[in-house]
Amino acid sequence: MKKEILRALRETDGFVSGQELCSRLGVSRTAVWKNIRSLQDEGYEIEAVTNRGYRLAGVPDIVAEEEVGSRLETSRMGRQIRCFSRIDSTNQYAKKAAEDGAADGMLVIADEQTAGKGRRGRSWVTPPGETIAFTLLLRPKLSPDRVSMVTLVMGLAVAKAVNTLYPLKAGIKWPNDVVINGKKLCGILTEMSAEVMHVNHIVIGVGINANMTSFPEELSRIATSLKLELGRDVSRAELIAQVMAEFERLYEKFEEDGDLRAVSEEYNALCLNAESMVRVLDPNGEYTGTSHGINALGELLVETESGQVRNVYAGEVSVRGVYGYV
Amino acid sequence: MKKEILRALRETDGFVSGQELCSRLGVSRTAVWKNIRSLQDEGYEIEAVTNRGYRLAGVPDIVAEEEVGSRLETSRMGRQIRCFSRIDSTNQYAKKAAEDGAADGMLVIADEQTAGKGRRGRSWVTPPGETIAFTLLLRPKLSPDRVSMVTLVMGLAVAKAVNTLYPLKAGIKWPNDVVINGKKLCGILTEMSAEVMHVNHIVIGVGINANMTSFPEELSRIATSLKLELGRDVSRAELIAQVMAEFERLYEKFEEDGDLRAVSEEYNALCLNAESMVRVLDPNGEYTGTSHGINALGELLVETESGQVRNVYAGEVSVRGVYGYV
Repeated sequence: MKKEILRALRETDGFVSGQELCSRLGVSRTAVWKNIRSLQDEGYEIEAVTNRGYRLAGVPDIVAEEEVGSRLETSRMGRQIRCFSRIDSTNQYAKKAAEDGAADGMLVIADEQTAGKGRRGRSWVTPPGETIAFTLLLRPKLSPDRVSMVTLVMGLAVAKAVNTLYPLKAGIKWPNDVVINGKKLCGILTEMSAEVMHVNHIVIGVGINANMTSFPEELSRIATSLKLELGRDVSRAELIAQVMAEFERLYEKFEEDGDLRAVSEEYNALCLNAESMVRVLDPNGEYTGTSHGINALGELLVETESGQVRNVYAGEVSVRGVYGYV
Repeated sequence: MKKEILRALRETDGFVSGQELCSRLGVSRTAVWKNIRSLQDEGYEIEAVTNRGYRLAGVPDIVAEEEVGSRLETSRMGRQIRCFSRIDSTNQYAKKAAEDGAADGMLVIADEQTAGKGRRGRSWVTPPGETIAFTLLLRPKLSPDRVSMVTLVMGLAVAKAVNTLYPLKAGIKWPNDVVINGKKLCGILTEMSAEVMHVNHIVIGVGINANMTSFPEELSRIATSLKLELGRDVSRAELIAQVMAEFERLYEKFEEDGDLRAVSEEYNALCLNAESMVRVLDPNGEYTGTSHGINALGELLVETESGQVRNVYAGEVSVRGVYGYV
């Protein structure tokens, strides 16, 4: 109900009458009033003026279920939301919930992670109030070797969402780091539960540096935040909702084709490694070449000096820009 | 302590004095006596004769931790055991325990599974008292595309264990069905939790038809049990311990090489598809050929009529013997 009230207030530029809220939600005036009071207690500034109704004057930066849910325009992603002010790791929670039967599209959000994970067991810092940490659960019909493509779709969705909401130019460092001005904004950790040729479910954990103003010494040269780039705070709930919208649109295309053919053009337009020199850290021998962006399988196409084009598989090798971090 | 007492009684052909048990375990006579009583309550037949000591005269067919644990001769597999008289699924339990940090080698055993799983979400029947259902948790350093090899190792371990303990000839239908007299004895479901190129952990669920005497109509022509083949009950704990011993030996070789090169000869010796006609149900086109067993990657080598040898990957296609189930 609070989610519906917020949605109604947000959709209206001005006041919404109590009567309208009552009929729209099919509840009594008292019920509306109680929920408005409860929202005010949570930090929402809602003006109440006799004979005019209610107006949303300010929202707190919280990542509560109703705050995210009332902004979602998706039909599949985030239809079920679990919000935590503090949790060990959203990926851990989502994986366990998935084993217990949680549905495709479930979104797990945390204000603070006490044991956030990066790739290969590295830790990922999620201090309260400053970052975005969420995990999306999917149950795709995929074989395990196609899962890396979903990670690319999420990277693209985050970059798109950032560029839609803010006057920034976020790009993608292949396969899925989102980068602004040469510094990393977002990390993605995709994990799957699978049989040998059959995926049970995947969880995609996304960490976005939203309102952080400082980083640990070892990260400060390579990491940035939206606040550092914009000079102001951002609404985390708004960004999560926008990422979900972008992801749902892109993922539908991916699901229809079973690969990235309909997505690769958008990806390559934002891919910072496309048409640039890269160094491929292949365990079987490093080499340098010109990257031509991804193909329909999400592989990075790298043309070596001899003119041979190699397909570089995500995760198999590491790619570094010849100049700087990207 | 009960595990140690059982182990001592089993190792001795005759009576073990109470004094010897005391000094071996470093406890009082009263403690020994209490544990003997407790074992008797669980169904163990333990004779107690004054001035001679204790003798193990009979063991119940239970799959309790001390019954399995006292038989284990492994150093890694099954060092931690969780036994359940009734559980939804041992794979489910092991997967959740793994997310909570359970150690490599943990063995989960159930007398009855209420929601046992076969491949691709099919159900697997585990009535109480009659079947063996266990799951082994491993944390190997592997990429996801190598996990299918571990499944082959487990299939081989089960076949070896059966042939060691009983006067039967169990074989393997590639990749990992264990078969006796053309009928299926054992199913294996391997599941993994993985990042794109990095396995977090795998769980290997094993279901062995031990003491069943009848099957549902639709299975009776293709399934068999040890009891049906032997004409007598088998000790489930003894078989589990033997499978663990075989698996540990084979898995160590696999881990050392990173593939099946040191295991494939033993595998092919028991592989019912080796040197026989098979029909490969490849989604891209079925074909018939002569199988020459597996290579070091666990792929089945099939020579077509034109003399071309194709590598068939586990899970990718289905293989049927031209004659009968195998």
